[in-house]
Amino acid sequence: MSDIEIPESHPRYQSLLTRHRIEEGVEKGITSKQGLIAEGRGEAFDYLLGERTHPAADEAERAAAAHLLLAEHPVLSVNGNVAALVPGEMVELAAAVDADVEVNLFNRTEERLEAIADHLRDHGATEVKGLAADGRIPGLDHERAKVDADGIGAADVVLVPLEDGDRAEALGAMGKTEIVIDLNPLSRSAQTAAVPVVDNIMRAIPNITAHARDLRDAPREELERIVAEFDADGALAAAEEAIRSGSLDDAKTETEMDAESDAETKADADAEAARTDN
Amino acid sequence: MSDIEIPESHPRYQSLLTRHRIEEGVEKGITSKQGLIAEGRGEAFDYLLGERTHPAADEAERAAAAHLLLAEHPVLSVNGNVAALVPGEMVELAAAVDADVEVNLFNRTEERLEAIADHLRDHGATEVKGLAADGRIPGLDHERAKVDADGIGAADVVLVPLEDGDRAEALGAMGKTEIVIDLNPLSRSAQTAAVPVVDNIMRAIPNITAHARDLRDAPREELERIVAEFDADGALAAAEEAIRSGSLDDAKTETEMDAESDAETKADADAEAARTDN
Repeated sequence: MSDIEIPESHPRYQSLLTRHRIEEGVEKGITSKQGLIAEGRGEAFDYLLGERTHPAADEAERAAAAHLLLAEHPVLSVNGNVAALVPGEMVELAAAVDADVEVNLFNRTEERLEAIADHLRDHGATEVKGLAADGRIPGLDHERAKVDADGIGAADVVLVPLEDGDRAEALGAMGKTEIVIDLNPLSRSAQTAAVPVVDNIMRAIPNITAHARDLRDAPREELERIVAEFDADGALAAAEEAIRSGSLDDAKTETEMDAESDAETKADADAEAARTDN
Repeated sequence: MSDIEIPESHPRYQSLLTRHRIEEGVEKGITSKQGLIAEGRGEAFDYLLGERTHPAADEAERAAAAHLLLAEHPVLSVNGNVAALVPGEMVELAAAVDADVEVNLFNRTEERLEAIADHLRDHGATEVKGLAADGRIPGLDHERAKVDADGIGAADVVLVPLEDGDRAEALGAMGKTEIVIDLNPLSRSAQTAAVPVVDNIMRAIPNITAHARDLRDAPREELERIVAEFDADGALAAAEEAIRSGSLDDAKTETEMDAESDAETKADADAEAARTDN
């Protein structure tokens, strides 16, 4: 990994790491313009959430782990931002729950598919699905519908982080159990999911993996109990309440977010182009 | 202007126009990676505001117009996102209040300065300041401190949309009256401003211009009354309240924002690369 050389104890470690990975994603042709805008939207929601994993999100992450462990054929879907932000973390989660990893882009180009697959392999993935594209999700336009027949096409549980609403609904209509990671609790993707995880993907994926390791030897009945007791509507309501009532004063300001780009520029010799605007 | 060919009556006109202008900004080297992320943050806050100009924002826009009309030497500061999003609108406002337009970048490069100045000239600007850079804002790092001595350096009232917090504070410390446009009411820039305008710049600038035209022949006493009666803290509190209590269900979802990129791709032949992620 070519990650930043600052200690994890640094108060803005996650934030600097996020910026670094997004920059790297742009350089590698993984992160698109729309991906950068989506990253900004996520930052604003995360800011309103106080940039922390709330108890309801942690519960959702535990339920996600239980679903993945119970699944016959779990698949982790990876798009550009997911690949840029949590490549190694997705590979670790796939190993922890014995899931396939499938690249799945809203607008597919061979070039980006290959760049993302390469990036995942650089981070330890042995098999990357999504390039065969021999299956279809019913109800979607041709290019949007493509999946691997023996990947998402055959999955019973799918983790779809940062997914488009139409596709989230179409996957749900296929009878698949969907775990969605989305910082906007009112998004259609979050509303559609069996397990909506309203959390930053940088925190969510490692925490799902930690829960999966913790639950690895749990009896099937316990996993089924966790799944049955999870309350999706309650989790969404708790997230909305956190956004509504959280102390904005305690959260860092947008300006401080901007100032971090400078810190990154100083911390990271590669980040010369990190802050070229405002 | 090479703007989109869809009618203004289209329900998503502003949104499609925003995406189109951002794309064009990227192509012209005006909008940076950080600018795209900042645009996403703005979209999320605007979504929470219901994507409309609240009464308190309209009052702030009227106070901004009064300040600009009363000023001896008003200057409108333009950075990458401002140039991409409202180039013609900034030129119109400058004409309405007889202000200078000055390009002012957080991280200056000659290339971007020139690209932005050219873009403003393409949209009708006759004189663009910011290239002399023979003045300094005290208290900032060398590159961040640069302004034109006869532009922002000599201004009594400065409109600084989407401005960095450090610079907003440093300009305020110079005794300049600052009008800030920022969708986050808790940002340091908004908190620092004499007139914080918590509104989407695409709506705010034309509305300030409309108020300026309306107030053009008003007696000086009326302008002074508008300025004196404006309550910055009240405006910020109203904006925060709108974010806290607005109906998220009435606002479009993040997913719908994404779907618009598709509509744009269809609506606009130039936007082939509009949505290459997710």
